[in-house]
Amino acid sequence: VAGEAPAAKVEYTAWLRNSKNTAPLLLHTMYRVKNLDATLRFYVDGLGMKMLDRIDIEARRATALFIGYTPDVCLELVNAWDAASPYSHGNGYGHIAVGVPDLAGIFTKLKAMGVEVIQRPMAIVEGGPLCSFVRDPDGYAVELVQTGE
Amino acid sequence: VAGEAPAAKVEYTAWLRNSKNTAPLLLHTMYRVKNLDATLRFYVDGLGMKMLDRIDIEARRATALFIGYTPDVCLELVNAWDAASPYSHGNGYGHIAVGVPDLAGIFTKLKAMGVEVIQRPMAIVEGGPLCSFVRDPDGYAVELVQTGE
Repeated sequence: VAGEAPAAKVEYTAWLRNSKNTAPLLLHTMYRVKNLDATLRFYVDGLGMKMLDRIDIEARRATALFIGYTPDVCLELVNAWDAASPYSHGNGYGHIAVGVPDLAGIFTKLKAMGVEVIQRPMAIVEGGPLCSFVRDPDGYAVELVQTGE
Repeated sequence: VAGEAPAAKVEYTAWLRNSKNTAPLLLHTMYRVKNLDATLRFYVDGLGMKMLDRIDIEARRATALFIGYTPDVCLELVNAWDAASPYSHGNGYGHIAVGVPDLAGIFTKLKAMGVEVIQRPMAIVEGGPLCSFVRDPDGYAVELVQTGE
């Protein structure tokens, strides 16, 4: 997909979600991914996020996918068309967290999709909410937190 | 600050912002920081975010600060009390992005605070919004995007 037929007209509104706000706001978290198909399978098919925008920037030979549940806050997942080796993760960056109303259900679904499990659903701290950790196709940790009841 | 007088009662609600939502949602982005005072100076004094919650977890010897502009979405900045060396960053994780109504003003303020500048405000792509990049005290890139007019 990447590299084929970049969009003729580039829309920059993806950077400016909620641009009508007169107060500062968190817009997105950006990280780099190697394979757009695998990324979409995990975040859209698996986690149920929507692809909000796609920007193909020929001059930078990169594609940015803006993905999230609502346009209010999202992930910017950047695929450099010519990147060769996998990205390294260091030990500073941790994870993004997704709140889900049915942790058991989404966990079962992701496992069936072959997603790597870091931690099965459990209360990480006594009395805390049930949490699970899985890895996205590039190895980034994604925390799933049971919300509501 | 870290390690002194952990909160007697731990509140886990910080993980569950918008927990009344019945749909999945992005909750936070987590990364690790070395010095809570420097972190608060940058994110609260510099960028104008609020400290939404602080959890001191004695059993894990770590403090988690939940910081953001609104409780709807936030950063979870984790300080391990006994971590020695600085964290490594790899080349996969990119940045968080903050939309600001007055990019020139915040940029000037951060520079006066001694914040490291990666890129002065400029249109990264032709016709796109003005963006600037700075580093937080742990070296993480923070993108500042001019919103509105």
